[in-house]
Amino acid sequence: MVLANPHFQKLPSQYLFPRIAKEAALLKEKKPESRIINLGTGDIKEPLVPSIVTALCDAALEMGETKSFKGYGPSQGYFFLQELIALHDYPFLHIHPDEIFISDGAKCDSANIQDILDPKSLVALADPSYPVYVDASLMTGKKIVFLPCTEENGFCPKPPNRHVDLIYLASPNNPTGVAMTKEALEPWIYYAKRESAILIFDAAYEAFITGSCPHSIYEIEGAREVAIEIRSYSKSAGFTGLRCSYMVIPKTLILPLHPLWMRRTDTKFNGVSYIIQKAAAATYSEQGKKELSAQINRYQANTATFRTYLNQLGLTTFGGIDAPYIWCKTPPNFSSWQFFELLLHQAHILTTPGAGFGPCGEGYVRFFAIEEPSEAMKRLSALSLRT
Amino acid sequence: MVLANPHFQKLPSQYLFPRIAKEAALLKEKKPESRIINLGTGDIKEPLVPSIVTALCDAALEMGETKSFKGYGPSQGYFFLQELIALHDYPFLHIHPDEIFISDGAKCDSANIQDILDPKSLVALADPSYPVYVDASLMTGKKIVFLPCTEENGFCPKPPNRHVDLIYLASPNNPTGVAMTKEALEPWIYYAKRESAILIFDAAYEAFITGSCPHSIYEIEGAREVAIEIRSYSKSAGFTGLRCSYMVIPKTLILPLHPLWMRRTDTKFNGVSYIIQKAAAATYSEQGKKELSAQINRYQANTATFRTYLNQLGLTTFGGIDAPYIWCKTPPNFSSWQFFELLLHQAHILTTPGAGFGPCGEGYVRFFAIEEPSEAMKRLSALSLRT
Repeated sequence: MVLANPHFQKLPSQYLFPRIAKEAALLKEKKPESRIINLGTGDIKEPLVPSIVTALCDAALEMGETKSFKGYGPSQGYFFLQELIALHDYPFLHIHPDEIFISDGAKCDSANIQDILDPKSLVALADPSYPVYVDASLMTGKKIVFLPCTEENGFCPKPPNRHVDLIYLASPNNPTGVAMTKEALEPWIYYAKRESAILIFDAAYEAFITGSCPHSIYEIEGAREVAIEIRSYSKSAGFTGLRCSYMVIPKTLILPLHPLWMRRTDTKFNGVSYIIQKAAAATYSEQGKKELSAQINRYQANTATFRTYLNQLGLTTFGGIDAPYIWCKTPPNFSSWQFFELLLHQAHILTTPGAGFGPCGEGYVRFFAIEEPSEAMKRLSALSLRT
Repeated sequence: MVLANPHFQKLPSQYLFPRIAKEAALLKEKKPESRIINLGTGDIKEPLVPSIVTALCDAALEMGETKSFKGYGPSQGYFFLQELIALHDYPFLHIHPDEIFISDGAKCDSANIQDILDPKSLVALADPSYPVYVDASLMTGKKIVFLPCTEENGFCPKPPNRHVDLIYLASPNNPTGVAMTKEALEPWIYYAKRESAILIFDAAYEAFITGSCPHSIYEIEGAREVAIEIRSYSKSAGFTGLRCSYMVIPKTLILPLHPLWMRRTDTKFNGVSYIIQKAAAATYSEQGKKELSAQINRYQANTATFRTYLNQLGLTTFGGIDAPYIWCKTPPNFSSWQFFELLLHQAHILTTPGAGFGPCGEGYVRFFAIEEPSEAMKRLSALSLRT
């Protein structure tokens, strides 16, 4: 008799974000007049900038003409985009275009990369962390070592005192919003080399870095031997609904994962839509860069205002400087789900309870703080947070 | 030390189609003046029809406006598209919109579905078959039972005399171009029910059926209990470069795969681009249907001409009636790779060697026969096929 993959039984029955969305939908059903401010999922709010819209339409028109129609593209992505990425995102970092794999999302990449690694691998990841790392590890039968990230260690995971095979590092971090410094990253490269481990560096939020933290793991010496990097156009260019990201797999890794990932990509994927890749290419044009940098600046300003307001309310916050996420301590005697419920039902503000990201997330909620800080503040001020 | 997934070692080092593409690229390098007619990969040739181009541009403009911008969509797909599919593709077949999962390709679906099944499952598939079924089974550690499809059994696989857990059936078939009749499908549903097995029915080419063969497995009684169906806009609407397809997972399956696939989809996927889903929706408009039906008719006419020409040259062919593929016997004393080489180097016609699809494909080449039958014929006539 056919059986399901037994590893799926180890998963919580529902992925975190649909669960949160359901809570918001229930409220909306009960109180249809409520206007919920959605600071839960990390979904971008501004529309696509004009350069991207133009690129999409131009590419659609190209697809309507015999001479410029594009059928199947290279499963790894079009060279025009790989080349732009190497040039603009990795100047001086010696990333070759054919080390770049274009995909339809950082979520997909960070999960699917597990397919090419031994199911017996031991995976290390931060607690709290983006739930996909955990769920994808469990689905493929891997065991996990959690690295507690707390106020005491500045929410920066430290290499463990034992061997692991695979490590997920996200910087700027989701959910804590904290970016890792060069000094915090270096021991990880040293560790990975000593232990013959592979590091998956999730840099989906690098566009939000304001300080001096590295934007790429390849700024750290030796990273080309042990690190894979993931980046996304979702947050940097509002592609959450368009779907495009990429993964860098250096050909110089200690374990030759480049040909394996190519084999998997050729077999299980057929490339990202041509018109979406053209839209991604438009983000590197002079005009595109100008429009997007203005957009990111607006988001960053909102996050900064948000942080100030939360602090004025007496709430302790972390992150929110190099990332759009603010990691906010719950008021005394509130668990993270309780504070989440209070914010949702009494202020109609949707956040994500920290405990949903792992046990060390207990006592926090995550704000994706890029919109409506003033309205949110007004609603928060009306709450009694010290009950 | 980190190790690669050992199952990948069981794969041939390269996926079939990149290998074929490389052969064509080498010829082009040696003889830059050669104009290769590409009948190798199943890639569509005509540009997108006007309704689809308009839908893409309209959706792109929507994404550029605050009031109509769409961020993350439902990972399963937008309801507007699920609803259209249920209505137009499954009238009277009782497929509910939420049993439909929109994805970025039939290739991805037919491979990824393996993730939710026990790695110990025994998989049955046709020899010859689409290489993805084989490779995806091997990658996930599964064992395979091959079902020989030969001239003797009309290239239709019969249920085996033993238990298997999972069966891939493609109708119309790729590579043989043969569609299965209702009478050929019924024993499979009976078998799957008796053996508690799951059937994956790949109907990517259903738009090309001219005769009375079923377009959907759900036309067979009992299929809702044991069958998953895959369809694609790639061939029916020229989406090879846009990327959109879907998979039907009934909630009434004997093994409850619907919630498992939902869990996987939520965790490892973020939905298909909104604008691509809008383009898929346009295929169901009155104008879209008209334009696409004319397009398919042109392809079908070319395939029919092709078949006649090949037969006139004394070549024996199968398929090409309900599918754009013609399964052509090689001339005496030619292996399928030898005939492939002859066609490529002496006629500059790219095909796919049958042996690339499995041992029973030896002695055949596959023509994706949708374009330039006259020019191809001219070149083929100049060859001596009886050497």
